[in-house]
Amino acid sequence: MTNNTQSILDHLAADHDAATQRLRDLLTIPSVSTDPAYAGDVKRAADWIEHDLKQLGFETRQIAEGGHPAVIARSTDAMVGDASAPRVLFYGHYDVQPPDPLELWTTPPFEPAVRDGKVYARGACDDKGQVMTFIEAVRAYLANGHRLPCHVTLLVEGEEECGSVTLPEVLDQHADLLEADLCVISDTSMWEGKEGATPAITYALRGLVYFDLKLHGPSRDLHSGVYGGTLANPANLIARVMGKLLDDDNRVTIPGFYDEVAALNDEERADWQALGFDEAQYLGDVGAQPFGEAGYSTLERRWARPSCDVNGLYGGYMGEGAKTVIPSFAGAKVSFRIPANMDPRKLAAAFEQWIRKHDVGGCRWEITQHGEAFPVATPTDSPWVAAASRAIESVVGRAPALMREGATIPVVADFKTKLGLDTLLIGFGLNSDNIHSPDEHFALDRFLLGCQCHAALLDSLASAN
Amino acid sequence: MTNNTQSILDHLAADHDAATQRLRDLLTIPSVSTDPAYAGDVKRAADWIEHDLKQLGFETRQIAEGGHPAVIARSTDAMVGDASAPRVLFYGHYDVQPPDPLELWTTPPFEPAVRDGKVYARGACDDKGQVMTFIEAVRAYLANGHRLPCHVTLLVEGEEECGSVTLPEVLDQHADLLEADLCVISDTSMWEGKEGATPAITYALRGLVYFDLKLHGPSRDLHSGVYGGTLANPANLIARVMGKLLDDDNRVTIPGFYDEVAALNDEERADWQALGFDEAQYLGDVGAQPFGEAGYSTLERRWARPSCDVNGLYGGYMGEGAKTVIPSFAGAKVSFRIPANMDPRKLAAAFEQWIRKHDVGGCRWEITQHGEAFPVATPTDSPWVAAASRAIESVVGRAPALMREGATIPVVADFKTKLGLDTLLIGFGLNSDNIHSPDEHFALDRFLLGCQCHAALLDSLASAN
Repeated sequence: MTNNTQSILDHLAADHDAATQRLRDLLTIPSVSTDPAYAGDVKRAADWIEHDLKQLGFETRQIAEGGHPAVIARSTDAMVGDASAPRVLFYGHYDVQPPDPLELWTTPPFEPAVRDGKVYARGACDDKGQVMTFIEAVRAYLANGHRLPCHVTLLVEGEEECGSVTLPEVLDQHADLLEADLCVISDTSMWEGKEGATPAITYALRGLVYFDLKLHGPSRDLHSGVYGGTLANPANLIARVMGKLLDDDNRVTIPGFYDEVAALNDEERADWQALGFDEAQYLGDVGAQPFGEAGYSTLERRWARPSCDVNGLYGGYMGEGAKTVIPSFAGAKVSFRIPANMDPRKLAAAFEQWIRKHDVGGCRWEITQHGEAFPVATPTDSPWVAAASRAIESVVGRAPALMREGATIPVVADFKTKLGLDTLLIGFGLNSDNIHSPDEHFALDRFLLGCQCHAALLDSLASAN
Repeated sequence: MTNNTQSILDHLAADHDAATQRLRDLLTIPSVSTDPAYAGDVKRAADWIEHDLKQLGFETRQIAEGGHPAVIARSTDAMVGDASAPRVLFYGHYDVQPPDPLELWTTPPFEPAVRDGKVYARGACDDKGQVMTFIEAVRAYLANGHRLPCHVTLLVEGEEECGSVTLPEVLDQHADLLEADLCVISDTSMWEGKEGATPAITYALRGLVYFDLKLHGPSRDLHSGVYGGTLANPANLIARVMGKLLDDDNRVTIPGFYDEVAALNDEERADWQALGFDEAQYLGDVGAQPFGEAGYSTLERRWARPSCDVNGLYGGYMGEGAKTVIPSFAGAKVSFRIPANMDPRKLAAAFEQWIRKHDVGGCRWEITQHGEAFPVATPTDSPWVAAASRAIESVVGRAPALMREGATIPVVADFKTKLGLDTLLIGFGLNSDNIHSPDEHFALDRFLLGCQCHAALLDSLASAN
């Protein structure tokens, strides 16, 4: 680490309260991308990001290919110290998950509150907080009159939580704006082993296939006494079909489902063993016990095996008490997380075929797909990974963990196929941050750690290539 | 039919518009008993009924044994022509089903509208409209200065749509007020065969067992990427369990479920054959095809076989689009319709035992029972049935059909066991009245027919015993 970099890290520590206030300001915007009712707020969040980056000197624009806008910001040559330095494309998202169930939040999800050194709000960690770690690192260079060690492009999109539907089109149409040498993303977690949390570089992600299935039966809700037993009830039948998705060994029953799952090798199994995964804490923290595909450990199920979750059930009478109806329809939200080398398109087709083969007594399926993402597995022996490891070690005093992640960042596969970029996933979240849940939060000391790691990373990457 | 009775029937026809207006007035009250938010409206409907009967000269009171009040009204001796005439206990209910989904109503459910000779409102048929057929018959006698042919007691309760939870206690505590010679109920349908609709006497009802099942999993909603595949998802598991309720022959899999179901004899099968059931219309009207327990006809499934319906599913993300959560809980509303001689208490116990035997990976069941009713089968060769048949024939010119009903009127079994009363079920609904559904309605000509049949019935019963 250069003296220059050390002064940047010091500046970040001194400016931490102001950075926190900027994050809280962004967190007040309810940029829920999946629900059309929030479209105006999503746009406001894009404007906020663009305005902030423009103020720092970036050339900015918003690009929408039919969906919520993506903010693209490129550093000018004048902002960068060494013209021959590599260009880093930082990717993040400013949209957030829906905040429901609202009644389980201690404070309202879009009124960010600091308690016990943590900021609580929807998006505090996923991903507004993590996006701001990078922006604050850039700000620290520029605010002190320094120039950036690398060329920097930011791509901050607004559709990650609803499947990044139009982002591939943005990448296709604006590849020139996005040319870079590598991509950096902060939307993952630190490694939490038995010896505490440590920054990590994540080298593989599961992909995603998500469906909304609606089974339509009678033309109206019917009295279950008058009609019960004589016709197909879509709630019974959707339960029957969903219930057959997993067998008694919790293996998915769709034919060919596991055919292309990459097998774990002994070396990777040994590396994971060395990470000191604390299963008791991981599951115990959420009141659960191990349960999943027979023949695999919890960590293997999480990182290297596919999963199949019913994310929601709805239909018929859902209120208090009793209503004796045969519902005219029932629905299920169903998703799969898929490790390398599963193909989400093949799975989507096989799933739909599997759904339709069941006898549903004349009921009619309405099948809507929401999102589809390839899994990712990036090489762990590249100079970029080495540079990132050095940078993180310079800040925290020890080497980062090399890990996988069970979750999905759809764009990572697209960066590889469309832009030819490998991605460094360096995140500062914890599993206990309640992302996608009530009381989502981000610890302010990890927020600072993220800012400092990114500052060191920019310095380290400048000399990596 | 006496001349006296004919003049009453004529009066009912002349007073029909005023009677319709009275019904519409009652229908404006949203007396939804299952939802505590409507408790005040439920009370208002009780007050309306009580006020109307008090004005006619009845001795009235409201009785609540911890639930919504029941209105009890007894004729005084001065109101009845022959002191030795039998006493008829008329039972009905003033509470209604929830009106949702509201968006599917053509006009608001509690703003009764007349279109094409039908009044549209929640409760138009079930059961406010049918209750008013009897009250109008009584009013017709009294309004003309006549006296009633029978002693009359009315019991109009407010909890039928939520399982008549406290009514057994009302019967136990106030048996003296309710003593009578037989019970009459109008909460059933006319028979609709291939030759049109005809008034009917219903001699058997299915009972009911209703459960709300909630399966609790993780302590909060979880990110399905971070946790998917490693722990029990209550939405997957409740689907799996609900999906196993019926086998591929649509037979309920709970052990012993069918042991006590009364077998149909050949005579009853032949009688039903003669009714000319129009399966194509019955199912076609609601866009369905035959689907149910293997080995039985649609009419047999409806009247003489048990059914098992999932009445609602809920949990996880139920909104638009996608949310990738593992829900902390998922729920199902499940009910059984049970023909003679099934015992709802034995079934409830067997069902709960069956539920708990499944492996749900450490998730926890919260099991709430809503309502429990015995099935009913009353003798068809009694003098009351003969008198009722004569009365109906005198109004409509042909004998009524003798039929069963798939639905449940819980109190009928209680009248037998607690008060020793057989019940005449004479209803004027049609299956197409959309009871329990949007656009519930009651044809005004059937409303008049009901009023006239009840007037003739009171006359006929006076000489039956």
